[in-house]
Amino acid sequence: MQVLIVHCHPDPSSFNGAMTRITRECLASTGHAVALSDLYAQGFDPVEHSRHYEAPTNSAVFQPLTEQRYAFESEQLAPDVRREVDKLKAADLVIFQFPLWWHGMPAMLKGWFDRVFVYGGIYNGERRFDRGMLQGKRALYSFTTGGPAETFSPLGRSGDIAKLIWPLHCSLYYVGFDVLPPHPIYGVQGGGLQYQAADAFRKRLEEEKHRWKDRLTGLFEEMPIPFTGWSDWNEAGILLDSHPLRWRG
Amino acid sequence: MQVLIVHCHPDPSSFNGAMTRITRECLASTGHAVALSDLYAQGFDPVEHSRHYEAPTNSAVFQPLTEQRYAFESEQLAPDVRREVDKLKAADLVIFQFPLWWHGMPAMLKGWFDRVFVYGGIYNGERRFDRGMLQGKRALYSFTTGGPAETFSPLGRSGDIAKLIWPLHCSLYYVGFDVLPPHPIYGVQGGGLQYQAADAFRKRLEEEKHRWKDRLTGLFEEMPIPFTGWSDWNEAGILLDSHPLRWRG
Repeated sequence: MQVLIVHCHPDPSSFNGAMTRITRECLASTGHAVALSDLYAQGFDPVEHSRHYEAPTNSAVFQPLTEQRYAFESEQLAPDVRREVDKLKAADLVIFQFPLWWHGMPAMLKGWFDRVFVYGGIYNGERRFDRGMLQGKRALYSFTTGGPAETFSPLGRSGDIAKLIWPLHCSLYYVGFDVLPPHPIYGVQGGGLQYQAADAFRKRLEEEKHRWKDRLTGLFEEMPIPFTGWSDWNEAGILLDSHPLRWRG
Repeated sequence: MQVLIVHCHPDPSSFNGAMTRITRECLASTGHAVALSDLYAQGFDPVEHSRHYEAPTNSAVFQPLTEQRYAFESEQLAPDVRREVDKLKAADLVIFQFPLWWHGMPAMLKGWFDRVFVYGGIYNGERRFDRGMLQGKRALYSFTTGGPAETFSPLGRSGDIAKLIWPLHCSLYYVGFDVLPPHPIYGVQGGGLQYQAADAFRKRLEEEKHRWKDRLTGLFEEMPIPFTGWSDWNEAGILLDSHPLRWRG
C-alpha cells in the first residue's frame, strides 16, 4: 500500500523526528511504499495568501475558496500545493506526526490543511463527509504531548484528549477519510537526542518504538472511528428526529 | 480600558475585516484605548523556528521551550514576538477576530499562539491556569463560519460549536485569561464588499453590527466561562475524588 507521512517538527533530532524515521523504516520493511512530506525541511509556507495565486479570478479582493477552486480547475495551483495534493491522492493511508502545541497542531501543519485541502479539488458541497473525495483512504494523528497522560484523562487538567483531538478528526472526516484512533505519546518534554536527558530519551523511545510497531503493521485492519453521514441527517444537516443516536445518552 | 484586537484575515474587505473596523470604532467611541495586531498586514511569521533565535542556548538542536525561555529571560526575543508580548501584557481585554478554517484558527493565528505565548514569559509550570500570568485579563473569540448555524448545533453535521471551540478556550485559560463565551457569525460565504453578493453582504453586516455592538460594550461585565483550577485538582492534576463536578452528569 501507499503511505504518506506528513511530518511537522522543527528539529529532526526530536522525539517526533525519531518516530517518523521508525514509521518509514517499519513500513518500508513490510513492503509498503512510503512518501514523506517533511514540512519544516520543505520550508512549506503555511499561510493561505493571495501571493499563491498568480492569475486570480479577482485581484481586487481575495476570497480563498473562489481562488482555490479556480486554480485547481485551471491547473494553476501553486507548485508546493500541487505536490501535496498529488501525494494525498496517491496515498492509501496518511499518518500525521507532530507535537501537540497549544491544544492543536503547530501552525505549519494547520497551514497544510488550509492550503492543501483545496476547495473544488479535495472537496466541494456535494462531495464531503461520507461522500468525500478521499473516501477509501485512512488517516491517523500520531503526536507527542508535554504533559503526562493522567492529565489528559476525562477529568484531568490538560483536558480530555478525545475532546482536544475531535475538531482535528472532523477535518479528516470532512474530506472523506476513514479516521483511525490517534496515537498519542504523552509526557515528552524537551527531548532531543543530544539533550541532557539523552539516556531517558533513548529508553522512552525504545518503549514507544515497540508499542508503535505493534500497531503500525495492523493499521489497514483497524476499525475506523464511527461518524454520522448523509443518510443520518435531514436536509438542514441535523441528525434525523428518528435517529437512535439521539438516545445514546 | 485597554483592548487588543488580534485580527487574522487575508482580505481587508472581508466580513472579518468589517467586524474589526466596527470593533475599533465602537470601543474607541466609548472611551477605550484600542490596539490592533493585524497579522496579515504585519506579515507575521507564524512558524516557530530556530531562525527566530539569534543566540540560542544550543545550536545543535532546537528545543522551542528552552529557547523561548532563554530568549525571554535574556531579553533577546525576536522583535515581532516582543511587540506582541508587550501588547498582550498591556491589554485588559483581547478580542480575536478570524474565519473558522478547518475546524480551527487559520495557521497565521495558530502561529501567533505558538510564538507569542512564550514559555517563561507568558506562563511556566507554576504560573498556569488560575495562577496564570495573564490573570485578570479577559479574552474572546469572534469568528465567522461558512456553514449555517443549524449545522453547528449539538446534533448538526458541522459539529457542536462548543466542542469545536473548546480546545481554543483551553489555550486562553492555560495562561490565566478569563474566557468569555465566543461570538460566532454563521453562514458567511465568500463575502467581500466588492463581491457579487454585495447587497446581501451589506444587509447581513448591518444586522451583525447591531448584535455585536450590543454585546461589545458590556464585555467587561460578562460572566466568564467556568473552568476548574488548582484547588479542584489532586497532585496528579486530576479532579479531586470528592469534587461535586464528578457527579454533574
